[in-house]
Amino acid sequence: MHKTRSDSPALKVIFLGGVGEIGKNMTALEFAGDILVIDCGSSFPNVDMPGIDLVIPDTTYLMANKDRVRGIVLTHGHEDHIGALPYVLKDLNVPVYGTKITLALVEAKLREQRVENTSLNIVKPGSTVQFGCFKVEFVNVSHSIAGSCALCITTPAGVVFHTGDYKVDFTPIDGNIIDLQRIAEIGNHGVLLLLAESTNIERKGSSMSESTVGASFNSILADNTERRIFIATFASNIHRIQQIIDLAVKYKRKVAFCGRSMINIAQAAARIGELRYTDDMVVDIDKIKNIDDRNLIIITTGSQGEPMSALSRMASDEMSKVQLGYNDTVIISASPIPGNERLVYNVINNLYRHGCKVIYESLAEVHVSGHAYQEELKLIHSLIKPKFFMPVHGEHRHQKKHAELAMKMGMPSSNIIVPDIGDQIFVSKRQMSIGDKVPAGALLVDGLGVGDVGSTVLRDRKHLAEEGLFVIVIGLERASGSVTGIDVVSRGFVYNEDAEELLNEAKNVVLRASEKIDVKGLEDLTVYKNLIRKEVKTFLFKETHRSPMILPVVVEI
Amino acid sequence: MHKTRSDSPALKVIFLGGVGEIGKNMTALEFAGDILVIDCGSSFPNVDMPGIDLVIPDTTYLMANKDRVRGIVLTHGHEDHIGALPYVLKDLNVPVYGTKITLALVEAKLREQRVENTSLNIVKPGSTVQFGCFKVEFVNVSHSIAGSCALCITTPAGVVFHTGDYKVDFTPIDGNIIDLQRIAEIGNHGVLLLLAESTNIERKGSSMSESTVGASFNSILADNTERRIFIATFASNIHRIQQIIDLAVKYKRKVAFCGRSMINIAQAAARIGELRYTDDMVVDIDKIKNIDDRNLIIITTGSQGEPMSALSRMASDEMSKVQLGYNDTVIISASPIPGNERLVYNVINNLYRHGCKVIYESLAEVHVSGHAYQEELKLIHSLIKPKFFMPVHGEHRHQKKHAELAMKMGMPSSNIIVPDIGDQIFVSKRQMSIGDKVPAGALLVDGLGVGDVGSTVLRDRKHLAEEGLFVIVIGLERASGSVTGIDVVSRGFVYNEDAEELLNEAKNVVLRASEKIDVKGLEDLTVYKNLIRKEVKTFLFKETHRSPMILPVVVEI
Repeated sequence: MHKTRSDSPALKVIFLGGVGEIGKNMTALEFAGDILVIDCGSSFPNVDMPGIDLVIPDTTYLMANKDRVRGIVLTHGHEDHIGALPYVLKDLNVPVYGTKITLALVEAKLREQRVENTSLNIVKPGSTVQFGCFKVEFVNVSHSIAGSCALCITTPAGVVFHTGDYKVDFTPIDGNIIDLQRIAEIGNHGVLLLLAESTNIERKGSSMSESTVGASFNSILADNTERRIFIATFASNIHRIQQIIDLAVKYKRKVAFCGRSMINIAQAAARIGELRYTDDMVVDIDKIKNIDDRNLIIITTGSQGEPMSALSRMASDEMSKVQLGYNDTVIISASPIPGNERLVYNVINNLYRHGCKVIYESLAEVHVSGHAYQEELKLIHSLIKPKFFMPVHGEHRHQKKHAELAMKMGMPSSNIIVPDIGDQIFVSKRQMSIGDKVPAGALLVDGLGVGDVGSTVLRDRKHLAEEGLFVIVIGLERASGSVTGIDVVSRGFVYNEDAEELLNEAKNVVLRASEKIDVKGLEDLTVYKNLIRKEVKTFLFKETHRSPMILPVVVEI
Repeated sequence: MHKTRSDSPALKVIFLGGVGEIGKNMTALEFAGDILVIDCGSSFPNVDMPGIDLVIPDTTYLMANKDRVRGIVLTHGHEDHIGALPYVLKDLNVPVYGTKITLALVEAKLREQRVENTSLNIVKPGSTVQFGCFKVEFVNVSHSIAGSCALCITTPAGVVFHTGDYKVDFTPIDGNIIDLQRIAEIGNHGVLLLLAESTNIERKGSSMSESTVGASFNSILADNTERRIFIATFASNIHRIQQIIDLAVKYKRKVAFCGRSMINIAQAAARIGELRYTDDMVVDIDKIKNIDDRNLIIITTGSQGEPMSALSRMASDEMSKVQLGYNDTVIISASPIPGNERLVYNVINNLYRHGCKVIYESLAEVHVSGHAYQEELKLIHSLIKPKFFMPVHGEHRHQKKHAELAMKMGMPSSNIIVPDIGDQIFVSKRQMSIGDKVPAGALLVDGLGVGDVGSTVLRDRKHLAEEGLFVIVIGLERASGSVTGIDVVSRGFVYNEDAEELLNEAKNVVLRASEKIDVKGLEDLTVYKNLIRKEVKTFLFKETHRSPMILPVVVEI
């Protein structure tokens, strides 16, 4: 139950999406009759979601208030901020606003999934859009993708400043430094609420500039003049790719793009002028055999060790058009996202097995983070000087540490709320409080199904994965109650010469169990099946110390 | 094919065990009629081994040469060096040699698994044991467990120096500094082959002393005088636990051990005098409610976020005897082992949700590594000055980097081999070469089964985990070839209101498929089953874009 607010009408902030990280995939602002949605992203499934392709936000709340949703504003074009649009726009076709490169990525995504008749509206940093009672100003920031913005949202309750994902880069590749003047001005006019990202709250000092990565690449290219160079990085990091292209020109090398998303994004970015290269500088990945090693840089996907990515497939010899060898230098220009470490190291080990020289972050400065470190976070707090603060974009531990940072800078703890997924936070001029939860969180996408894989299905998948399966098919003559035949099939359970014997013994267990019960007298066979399941389970556990999923199927004759 | 050696009889080094890391779980030396085994450890299963409890080395080669195996020497008592003994000794009951604490841990392990009549022989650092033609000297080193040794093995071909897991700690907790004098002497007498660990080859400089962790704990205790303190660490790190106990005395706190292995190892170490505390200092974990927060330190397992460990269970409210709250400070005194990051961060997030203060490695110096950094590795190379070198104990990338380090120190690349699992390496006074592979690698333990879960079972488990299961039971009157009934059961596939309809449509697919084939004429039903599987697979993929495992079972009537 949320308390009624007596001082003034309250703004509502609702955290709708995410897996473990709060306020990243989707946040909504609501005031009276208007709802504004910030970002619409997808997450990768956790390890406890086997077979799931994608996780999108639960939009139950938005669908129930469909006619009040005025639009979706996008802070930037990363998957965790735009990836759910093809699913959400199908049912909630509201106007979408973002910068040129952000919408170019959205457009490609919608085209691929055949979502049509959408309203995509390009905004420039510095411009303003009205959504009902919300006035949204897009403020230029730096991040690991071009066209990233913070949002300054004027609401009837006061001004909300939402940082989006950002860093402070004084020497960005495109020359557009984060708009600190405007941010200072916004702060001077008074900000009611700051929502700020928390990803790198554990890191002291300031993040390095993106341009330092170019300097590292430069010295690697200078040291490897006779070798073929591979650079794996995120396809969406246009600025990093631009630096590689510029160095290719300097060192008279051709560039080949490798991996579907790398090729698609490079083309999309080039089309709108965000990536600059001439056609003669680029060679098709299928034709690299005609180019000397010393004249080639291959820019590839797979920096996270994703098993189906170009780099993984090269490293495990599954990509016939690229053969790796002793004259290759591979740069992994990324950090493993927590949970991906094992995958990344597997790829690196495989690269070494091919004789490649491998350069990765723990050995050289070939990557910088796109997220603000502690001093950069402090800079925003000190410029914005908000009345209220909610740390977002991070795991719970990051949010807590970010709250501590704000308190160290003088904010009273009563003016800070650490929100969780599904929370509705009420903010008025005088106070901020947590209301009831709304439906929110992870909706699982598996193949064509959205939301049809729930906890029961995942629990079964986990059971099957860990213990395997034991199907018992019983032919039963109902009239006499006698068993006419038993068949057992197991998968993922045991597989050796002893299995035959075990399966036969299990059949005897079924026969003996069947004698214990008067099947003729049973109204339905659930009791019989449960008995069979229990006896076989006990038998198999005794013999193997394993508990496969047991499925008794009775065929009545 | 290995070349025959003409210069002198060759020593054979065989790498038998491990998952991804070479030469850690088990290595064998062979000369003429004698085989000596170094370590006998287990690994944790990879993520692609669902349901597997433990991975042990494949000992096929040793079993085939059983009567030549003279014994097993243990470098130290970590699981990855002793964990396979209960399985291996059952079939290969040879004498085992190790230091007092190592064998105390082995003994507890053998007792738990009821392996009896083994020969465990305590050795002191500095002492020598003869195994056939091999003379083994145990050399004291530092590591994250007490009683760790390097091995100096005199063979007819020359001296082999095996570092085991080690670091150089000039201020170790027990005062026994790594025996650099003896190592220098061994080097001066001439070493044929160095086998050295490679875990921290990517880290520059030198590792910090274990005693620095005590200093960090001290300042945390000084800053948290009114709070209850939890410290999660590896149960086997006796020296760290000793430091905590000593600080408990200083700050007048009682100590409670929490977690099965923590309690067991603390007792075993205390029994043999390796851990020093008096009974009145320790309080049973069931009785901590009687102790004020300010007077208690709880030393617990779970520093890797293992789901069944004490700390994980506390953090997710599954351990009724410990309730976490705002007055608790939890120190995670460990680094996440690659692959465990997600688990560890989940626990940390849960601790924050309880209101705990959490201190972990990225925030403070509460852990040091037990493995040598680059400068410590160089020290051993420069003291041992071997003729030949094999980097071991690490992933392939670590081994390669370690080989590069040796080359930078002047060793010719022709004198270095980077071995892989299963390799036999022949070493004579003049040369070193790789021979044929022997059976080696991972043997999977699942419940009571050792080795009965192979690649087919794992592949099935993976398929079941990602896509679920679809069982089709068909009652078939063989004489007429007519289908008398169809039942379908699915698990881990779909679970919603549409499923009923989908299952019914699938039955129709089976009926239609059955009409396509003359079942009467078939010798066996495999053709029929394959047809059913194919048609249902196509149908389900079209409807759902998923490919569950399809199991057709035909019951003949």
